[in-house]
Order: sequence, then C-alpha cells, then structure tokens
Amino acid sequence: MSSSFGRYLRATTFGESHGVAVGVVVEGVPAGLRLEAAAIQADLDRRRPGQGPFSSPRQEPDAVQILSGVAGGRTLGSPIALMVHNRDARSGDYTNLAEVFRPGHADYGYYQKYGLPPQPGGGRSSGRETLARVAAGAVCRALLARVGVAVTAYTVQVGPARAARVDPEFARNDPLRCADPAAASAMAQAVQAAMAEGDSLGGVVEVVASGVPAGLGDPVFAKLDAALAGALMSIGGVKGVEIGAGFAVADRRGSQNNDQMDGEGFVSNHAGGVLGGISTGQEIVARLAVKPTPSISRTQQSQDLWGRPREITVKGRHDPCLCPRVAPVAEAMTLLVLADAWLAQRALVGGEPLNLD
Amino acid sequence: MSSSFGRYLRATTFGESHGVAVGVVVEGVPAGLRLEAAAIQADLDRRRPGQGPFSSPRQEPDAVQILSGVAGGRTLGSPIALMVHNRDARSGDYTNLAEVFRPGHADYGYYQKYGLPPQPGGGRSSGRETLARVAAGAVCRALLARVGVAVTAYTVQVGPARAARVDPEFARNDPLRCADPAAASAMAQAVQAAMAEGDSLGGVVEVVASGVPAGLGDPVFAKLDAALAGALMSIGGVKGVEIGAGFAVADRRGSQNNDQMDGEGFVSNHAGGVLGGISTGQEIVARLAVKPTPSISRTQQSQDLWGRPREITVKGRHDPCLCPRVAPVAEAMTLLVLADAWLAQRALVGGEPLNLD
Amino acid sequence: MSSSFGRYLRATTFGESHGVAVGVVVEGVPAGLRLEAAAIQADLDRRRPGQGPFSSPRQEPDAVQILSGVAGGRTLGSPIALMVHNRDARSGDYTNLAEVFRPGHADYGYYQKYGLPPQPGGGRSSGRETLARVAAGAVCRALLARVGVAVTAYTVQVGPARAARVDPEFARNDPLRCADPAAASAMAQAVQAAMAEGDSLGGVVEVVASGVPAGLGDPVFAKLDAALAGALMSIGGVKGVEIGAGFAVADRRGSQNNDQMDGEGFVSNHAGGVLGGISTGQEIVARLAVKPTPSISRTQQSQDLWGRPREITVKGRHDPCLCPRVAPVAEAMTLLVLADAWLAQRALVGGEPLNLD
Amino acid sequence: MSSSFGRYLRATTFGESHGVAVGVVVEGVPAGLRLEAAAIQADLDRRRPGQGPFSSPRQEPDAVQILSGVAGGRTLGSPIALMVHNRDARSGDYTNLAEVFRPGHADYGYYQKYGLPPQPGGGRSSGRETLARVAAGAVCRALLARVGVAVTAYTVQVGPARAARVDPEFARNDPLRCADPAAASAMAQAVQAAMAEGDSLGGVVEVVASGVPAGLGDPVFAKLDAALAGALMSIGGVKGVEIGAGFAVADRRGSQNNDQMDGEGFVSNHAGGVLGGISTGQEIVARLAVKPTPSISRTQQSQDLWGRPREITVKGRHDPCLCPRVAPVAEAMTLLVLADAWLAQRALVGGEPLNLD
Repeated sequence: MSSSFGRYLRATTFGESHGVAVGVVVEGVPAGLRLEAAAIQADLDRRRPGQGPFSSPRQEPDAVQILSGVAGGRTLGSPIALMVHNRDARSGDYTNLAEVFRPGHADYGYYQKYGLPPQPGGGRSSGRETLARVAAGAVCRALLARVGVAVTAYTVQVGPARAARVDPEFARNDPLRCADPAAASAMAQAVQAAMAEGDSLGGVVEVVASGVPAGLGDPVFAKLDAALAGALMSIGGVKGVEIGAGFAVADRRGSQNNDQMDGEGFVSNHAGGVLGGISTGQEIVARLAVKPTPSISRTQQSQDLWGRPREITVKGRHDPCLCPRVAPVAEAMTLLVLADAWLAQRALVGGEPLNLD
Repeated sequence: MSSSFGRYLRATTFGESHGVAVGVVVEGVPAGLRLEAAAIQADLDRRRPGQGPFSSPRQEPDAVQILSGVAGGRTLGSPIALMVHNRDARSGDYTNLAEVFRPGHADYGYYQKYGLPPQPGGGRSSGRETLARVAAGAVCRALLARVGVAVTAYTVQVGPARAARVDPEFARNDPLRCADPAAASAMAQAVQAAMAEGDSLGGVVEVVASGVPAGLGDPVFAKLDAALAGALMSIGGVKGVEIGAGFAVADRRGSQNNDQMDGEGFVSNHAGGVLGGISTGQEIVARLAVKPTPSISRTQQSQDLWGRPREITVKGRHDPCLCPRVAPVAEAMTLLVLADAWLAQRALVGGEPLNLD
Repeated sequence: MSSSFGRYLRATTFGESHGVAVGVVVEGVPAGLRLEAAAIQADLDRRRPGQGPFSSPRQEPDAVQILSGVAGGRTLGSPIALMVHNRDARSGDYTNLAEVFRPGHADYGYYQKYGLPPQPGGGRSSGRETLARVAAGAVCRALLARVGVAVTAYTVQVGPARAARVDPEFARNDPLRCADPAAASAMAQAVQAAMAEGDSLGGVVEVVASGVPAGLGDPVFAKLDAALAGALMSIGGVKGVEIGAGFAVADRRGSQNNDQMDGEGFVSNHAGGVLGGISTGQEIVARLAVKPTPSISRTQQSQDLWGRPREITVKGRHDPCLCPRVAPVAEAMTLLVLADAWLAQRALVGGEPLNLD
Repeated sequence: MSSSFGRYLRATTFGESHGVAVGVVVEGVPAGLRLEAAAIQADLDRRRPGQGPFSSPRQEPDAVQILSGVAGGRTLGSPIALMVHNRDARSGDYTNLAEVFRPGHADYGYYQKYGLPPQPGGGRSSGRETLARVAAGAVCRALLARVGVAVTAYTVQVGPARAARVDPEFARNDPLRCADPAAASAMAQAVQAAMAEGDSLGGVVEVVASGVPAGLGDPVFAKLDAALAGALMSIGGVKGVEIGAGFAVADRRGSQNNDQMDGEGFVSNHAGGVLGGISTGQEIVARLAVKPTPSISRTQQSQDLWGRPREITVKGRHDPCLCPRVAPVAEAMTLLVLADAWLAQRALVGGEPLNLD
C-alpha cells in the first residue's frame, strides 16, 4: 500500500498536515530491544521546523508518544505505534489557496486523483508527513546500532556552492547541514540571496551508511540500491538519486570505474557499496537531488479548479532550501531499507541472537 | 520477494544465464486482452544480443513460448507464463573465473550472500535475466496501448557524446539507440575507441512515457516517481535515476523550476510529469546513468575466494556499452510501473471497460 | 506483516491490552466517502465489554478518535487512522499470572516466540486487539453499503443449545447474540450453568454477507472462501471455519451437494455463495467454531517460566462464552475481505464511480 | 496476487488444465540446500491421476523439469522454477460443456468474473493446478526436513465410514489414503456404491505436522492457524477447516478444552499445536471437509451462458472421491505455511546455519 514501506520490517504512516496527528506503525521489530521515546525524539528534533534562519518558523513541539509495542523500555515484538499531535496548525494562511493549484506542489495531481481541492497545508502531501518516517527510522537506528550500522546525511551542494569534503560533526550543527565548513558560508549566502528575492534554492544531499555487513539486498527487483532509490525518491522534493559514482559513470571507461581488489578487499568504492544489488561491506553512498522549495512568495501564473488562469502568491511558512529538512528523512529511509534487508538476510542464513544489553 | 515486481500486476522472473531457461509469470492482467507471442517476440528481439557492432556476439534466438494464461490469442485472466530456453550457453568461456571475483560484477556480493562461487555467465546476476523483464513489459505494453499509453527509451549520452535532440525513430534503428542523428557517429566513435583499448564506456538512457492519464501513483511511499526510481535502478549497471530536470534542480531557484500553468495546463515540464508522486498528464521523463560494462579485456587486479590477490582478464562476449541493452529494459520497467499504477487507480475510481477489440 | 490485513484495502492494527491505546490504520479507501466517527462508534459499541450478564464487566468507554484520513465528514483517500485509548486497564488483577502460563492462552507460545513472560491482560494477544478490527470493519461497511453489501453475524450454537432459525433483529439485542428467539433461553441457561461452576462454554457463530456481486475473489490462493477462512480463523478462540454446507459435505453425494440451476439462477446454496473461489451472487455463509473462554476460575494445572508445575486460578474479568464478542469481529473480518475483493475486481473490470451522496 | 502464496518463501503458480504446461516459481529458498528432481517427482507421483480404482484414468506422466534455481543438485538462492508439460489433454470430452455451467464447478463464477465461457477441463480452476502446489511443497519439505519437521495427510472419513485410528504407513498405500486399516474396506465400499449410481462422495482429510518448533506464527492476522486455514481452504473442493478439536469445541467447557501443563509440557493437545496463533511445539493437527466431486455422470439441471435452462451430463475423467487427491495437496500447503513461518521467525531471532549435508 501507498503508505506502507518494507517487507520484513514495515512502517505504515498516517496523518495530514493540519489534521489531528501524524504517526506511524512499525511492524517486524524483534522483541527485547531497548527503545526509549527520548531516542526517537532526538531524531525528530533534528527534522523539526523552527530552527535557525533557513527554516520555516512553524513551531511544533513534535513530542512523540509511544502508543504500543514497548513496555518497560523494551520492544514487545508487537507493532510499535508512534504519534505526534499537530498543535500549531494555522490553516488560515492557506485559505486563499483552496481553489488555485500551487505551482510545483502536489495540488494538481491530487485533484486529478482524488477529486478534492487542495487541502490546508498540503494535507497528506505536506512535508509534515516525513515526521512519521523519521520516527520509524529512529526505531531502525536502535535496531541497526546493535549490529554496528550507522547512517548519516548532510548537504553537499546548495545552488552553486559545493562541499569539497565531509565533516559530519560540522554538518550536524550547521543550519543547512552543510558537510564542509569551508563551504558553509557560501551555501548560506546563496540561500539568503534567493530569500531576498522571494525565491528558493535547490541542492544535493548525501547519505552514507557505514558498518553494513556484506550480503544485504536481493537480486533482480529487490536490489539494495533499487530499494534505496525508491525509498529516497519517495521523499518530497527529490528529483534524482544516484549511488556511488552515480551520473559520473556516463563519462567513464570500465577500467576507470571498476573497483579492483588487492587481497585486502576493494581498493576504491565507485560502486557506492553495492554490486549486483548486494552490499559489499564498503560504505554505502547515495546522493539526492533536492528541488528548490516550490512555495515562493513571488507571484506565479497558475489556474484554478475550473481551469481559469489565476495569479498566485504563496504565503505561509516555508523553508528557502529543503536540504536540511531532507537530510534526516534520507537517513530514516536508508535506515528502513537497511533494517528490512538485514532481517531478510537473517531469515536466509540465521545468525547470533541480538545483543540486547 | 526479490524476483517479483508490482502490487496489482505482478511479474515474477526466474532463470540463470547458463541454466535451462529464463522466464516470467505475469499475474493480474485483465481477461480478454489480445496478446500474441509475436508482440512479445518483437520486444525481445529489440534487446537480443548479437545485433550489430556494439553488441555481444552471443547468438540466442530467444524465441518466447507462452506456457499459460492465453488461449485463442486472448488473455484468460490467469497468470501468463512466458519462457525462453537458453541455447547458446557456452560456459567454457567462464570456467577460469570460477574462483576469482570479476571487478565491477556481482560476484563478490553474491559470494558473501549465498556462500557460492561465481556462477557460469553470472548465473542469476547475468544481464540475461532482463529478458524476462522485457517479456513482462511487452504484456503491459499490450494492456496500456488500450488506454493510450506509449513508452520509448533511447540513448542520450555515451561518454563525451551527447544527444541534443530526440528522434525516437532514428534511435530504434541505431546500434547504440542514439536519440540524435547528429550525435550518432560521435557516440559510435567513442565506443570504438574504448573497444580498441580493451575497454568499455558508460552513458545515459532516457525513457519517456506519453499518454499517461493524470492521477496515477500514490502518495508517500508508492509515488509514481519513487516506483520508477526503484524499478529503473534495479536494472543491472544503472547507478543513477533522475526524473524531469533531475540533478539540474540543485542549481535552480523555485521561480525557475516550478511549472506554472496558464489555464490550458502546464507551460513547462521540469517536473517530468510527476508532482507529489502523482502523474499530471504530461509526459513522464526519466534518465538512467549506465555504468561502463564491467567486463573488459584489460588485465585487472582482483582476489580469489580465499582472499589471495589475483590478476584477471575477462574473456567471453560482452557489449562495450550497455546503453542499447538497457533501453528496452528501461521501457519494460516503466511499463510495469505504469500498468500497476493504472490498475491501482482503477480500483479506486472505476472506469470504462477496456476496449478489447 | 502479522498485524496487516488485505491487499488493496489494508488494515494495520496496533495496541496491547494494558498499553496506552489500541488502533488501526486503514489504507486504500477511496476518497469522498462519507465517514462519521458515530458510525464507527456504533460498531465498536456492539463489541464493547460490560454489557449484560454474560459479558466481562470491564468498563471501557472505547470512544474512537479519527486521527487522519477524514476531513469534513468525508474520506481523503489517505490512510484513516483510528484510535481508542485504554482507560480501565487494571493490571493488578493479572500480576500473579506473570510467571505462570494460563492454560488455553497464548502465554506459552508467546514466551517461546518472544522470550517475554506473559504480559498484563494478555498484551497483544488480548481480545482487546479485536477492537481495532471492528473499527476497520466499520470503515469497510461504509464503503460496501454504497454497493449494496450487508454483513451480519450471530450465535447459532452455545454448548448443547442450537438455533433452528435466524432472526438477525432478535440476535442484535440478545446478550448472547442468539439468532433464534426459541433457543435463547436454552443458550442462556447453558452459559449460566457453566458460570455457576466457574467454567465457560463454547459455541458457533455464523456470518452472512448479502448483496455481494458475482465475480469477487481470485483463483488459486486468493479464493474468496480461502481469504474468509484465514480472516475468520485469525480471530482469537476460533478453531474451525466452514463455508456453506461445511463439514456436512463429508456425508453427502455429489448429486445432493451440487447446486443446480433452473434458468433463474441457483436453486440451492450448499456452496455458501462461493464456487471455485469466486462469489456467485448468492448469500455468502460461513460458520466459526468458538472455543470456550480459556480463562476460568476453576483451579488448573500449569507450569511456570522455569518449567515447574504450578496451580493456577485465573482471576480477572472474563466472558463465560466468547460468541457474542466474536460475532462483531466476524462481521468486521468479512467486511475487510469483501472490501478488498471488491477493489481487486474493480481494478480488473472498472465500473461506475461510487455513489458518494 | 491470486496465484502467489507466502511472504518470505513465496510460490507463484501458473497453468491451465489443457494448456501447454503447469508450473511454479518458488522464491526465498536458502542457497546450498540439496534438491533433486527425484524428490519433487516423488511427491508429484503421489498426487498423480490414473492410480487405482478410485482415480481418474487420465494418464499424465507429470514429469517435473527444474528450469532454474538449482545447479549441481543444490539450490542457488535464486527462484526455483518447476514445470510439468500437459500431455494427455483430451479437450474433446469437454466440448459439449462449453456453454453450460457445470453444477458445483467454478464455471459460473469465472464467467461472471472474466466474461469467458467455461474453459476446456476447467482451465485455471482445474484440479491440475494443484500439481504446482505439490511441487512447491516438495521444495519446502526438503528445507523443513533439515530442521526436523515432517508433514503427512490421510483420509479420516468418506461418507459414513470413519477412521478410528491413524496408521500413516497404511494410508500411504491405500487407494483412498484411508488412515485406518479397519475402515479401509468400508470407505472403499461407500465410494463404489456412489460410483455405481453415477455419483460421488465427500469426506474428511487430516493433516499433521510433527517436529514444528515452538514460536512459529505471528499474532493477529498472520497466526499460524489462520495461515493454515486460508491455505487449506484454497484447495479446490474444501469447504471447512478445523484445527485441533475444531468444531467439537462448541460443545465443550473451558475446563475440558484447555490443555493443562504438568511441568513436562502439555498433557493434552486439544489446541492442535497452536495457541494464540503461535506454535507450541506439539503436533499441529488440521482437518479439511472435502466436498463430493461435482462432476457426476447423472443428469443435472443447469443453465447456459444465455440463462436458458439446460440439462447436463458431465462426461470425462473424474475421481469419485477427492480425498486421496486432496491429501498430498494438504501436505503441500501445510509445508508452504510452515516454511514461510520458519523463515519469518528466523529473521527475528537468528539461529544456526542450516545443516546442508
């Protein structure tokens, strides 16, 4: 189904932007795993709006509640339901949009699909939906930490400014999650320039998974990179996904692109940690093309539900660049893919009981 | 499961490169649809090796047999099983590879996953697996033709040579499936240059779907572009997928990237036909980064099953550039995604009976 | 996954007996359908404990809250999340059970599966879980009412007392949901006799679906009766399911059991409305064998987590006969199966838009 | 999908009675498992028609061919495709049925669903479809033998004749697979009496799984008994399924039905090896109500495609009692359910590598 993700470990999300709550049910998590609301909250806080100059000022405490699946700080093996109430839902800002399609938004497609006018705040298509993904990802993070897997994402490009190196610690505290201290101010300036003109800016987010054991992923349709591509492309605003060398392979020869081995393993990682759809034990590396925030305050041409041309000026609260909001979601989706693949492989080959200490 | 694709229309493939047969079972096709083996064969012939200077000389007739699901030239509503026998399986070429991992191939990951040494011809990881996808795609093509959907793919970049425009008719007959008559000879020369040095070359394939009704795709995880990304990334050798403007959005502002409307519909298609994961009725456009063929005749460094450094020279029959082989598979995967999404939407909103004439 | 049911219309439930809440996420419901909390509440009230002499006195208001998927009294096409808080969770009654397996309960199997001692109130294995099924069933009821399908269940046997005819109106108000006014007092007496001895009693529930269009269900594994059997057997305490004539067919000849036709349709319905796994347009009839409530106040022999023999006397609040609690759940599961099958068939053949008035 | 079964180990079947072939693709089998065609053939031979006085004289060699997934007598981890050609397809016997619905058959439902007249030999609804199930079950048998699980089925009732005890060895060689030597001749006479009058007879088949580890199955919808019920009810002609005491529980009190424990485990097995949907380590016992073969040579009333009353006399080759044909299929479905549940549990808790010797 459309709001469910995963085969062995499955997350089913729910919630509209201005509805009662947003949440997720996570099935398939082994019993006995330590899981505290605080750990989930920590991941949610990293995607929360209202943080810093480049973030929507919407103020949501986004306090997660564990409804089921956990007792005494440990998982029960039953579905883990997590919920966040929507508190700061100011539909007023959106009322004038109700009959005009916002350019770059889901409004038109949703109208064609469901026959409904644009919902306040985007309804189900709002970025607020990703909160549920991040909560589910936090559960997977707790599981995968037990087997040594860590996942982190950061911004490597914003408009013309590119990161030349990656410092994950720096990224964690940068308002744009810029990976490179040397590029942070150029990225910030590019965003500010766009904002000053009532505009927004695109970018690229990179996500890296380390400690992934070799052998995860399945041939043909459930390749690990295919699962990642589908998972990452499902994040709102993402228009491209590449693994390892990605689109750069188009210009390469086989002798340049193949990762050779020297008896100690691979001597390079152009493949991005996946060969034939199976993890090789190297770092898994993916990059996401993030489009400029479609909500801009400049006047745009559009049309209404009845096909009449209309001008539109999108008010409300919007991030000028989506990258810092996409990064935690990219981590979450990567964690979901890896947890699912880990369970799938465990079904085939068995393995040690989880360390539950 | 790993060899099954789709929710409502599902293809389950089987077969190893040098085994008895390769095939597919397609479930969920409505009854009464005209389906001739010749139509499936036509698509298979387009991906068949042994055609032209840039194709592996392996000679497989690849004659498809319909085992079930069709009687009197029409579908029965039951699973459609399609099979192609492997005839020209010359395992001899591969015997010296059995204990050394071929760089850029699935061998190492498979060994970690299954504990098995590299299989002759790549076994399940061989490109020959895609034959089953193309057969399933041909079934979807017959279905979608009834609702006006057409899908075509072609090569838009090979190494440094890029297509500036798209002529699908030209592409159909070009050995590299080059989209642009003006770029065809540059592409061919680039490939020949690589071949002359025992090397191979990467490229980019574009796939376009026209006639797709608005409203296909589902929010959140089953977005149409997410399904496409997963489907296309599952093709061997693909390292990146982008939709519409793709990675170019990283450099854009919202005012440049948003597709505005004028009362007659969209005035541009940077989104590539998908907004919020739902089709808009515009052309759906995706591009695939195709890595250079990993099998090259130049000597490479590798290691064997016991971790010892080994040199390897990959003999056998290999395409110097995968793009012309990837293009029909990209069509097939796109057709599978669209047929599945069409059925999903039909379940929700109903619709006219299929025209079965 | 274990807590998800359905292919096109999927319900994912969550919640433990003594946890924070019990709930369900329903995916795949078409947009625009009228859906009020009151309609869901009405179904929940029919399964609520604390009603009448044969029902556990646990007092739960079981007030349902719609968290998502509905706005302005109509479905949005997005997941419908429904939740009921647990208020009257008195774990105290259960504390002495924590290390002894209750006979006839899930405790032992769960311990073997999850390595966890019996949870308060049965945790995930509690009958309280069925509340989520009933809520999901109510959503399907609202959908199927639009196409003329109605589903009702009632008790046809309690111990030695059997219903000879079916009066659904009577059953609706009978404390045991007895179908036959003439058998109601015999059923009540049988239960009272068991209660007086600290014991419980089994029975049989019948569920009937009328107005089901012909053509629902799919051959082989997704036969309508197979889906019903799996769905109904998944209800706690159910040990048998039969369709139409059921086990009575073992004594019959083909000439007695075949439903012949007379040009106006079938002249009998031994098949129970399903032939070859496909609905025939007749009433669909299934019966469920319901075991006696395992929680009884008589002393029983058991063992504890460490394998030591232990006597156990199960205190707490328990129904002496499960039939009246199973009936609404049987309706819900039947509704889920039929809604899913209706959508599946609609995907294949299309159909009129839903009447959404 | 309708022809796919299982979540982690999945069988996808194909084939019509009078088409080219019947077969199955089995996904999810671990690599390295010994699997010979002879083992699959042995199971197929047990369901083969043309054996003994109570079996349809259709002569099919039913020689299985392994198309993929196995090399050198061991599984590869890739999909295992198995195929049997249809050789003895004599459609002539059925031509006069083409426009009249056969009572008790799938014809009417299929016509409503697909809009197609009855297919020769029943098409997809033919019992021949179960050959693919048996082939898939044989693969699961090879897997589960490695963990000590054995599954056997036999006939315990034919019309008025009932087995009082179970001798599986005897059943294996009895033409009706009667479990009890003392009841075999009564069963045979009952069938002969029906045959003599151009009629058929129903019965009951029991299936038992031994060696099943405790902890298999999942709560709520994927309970082990729910999965079994759905699996067994999907077999053509089955109208009821019960687990353990089954419908007998309706007459019981809790004190009679609960399985108490004595420090050495359970002292009885009324539950049939499943509590709360989870296996307890005891024998799993299920019984199937099998309807009398609908094809009888006596004249019956029916109607044709245009709703006109018609008499029909079903010629062709038919078993007078389905039980001996159902038994091997019941084994196969039970094996599929258990293999799937075993993989699901292994994903959660890990375990020793399979013994592949």
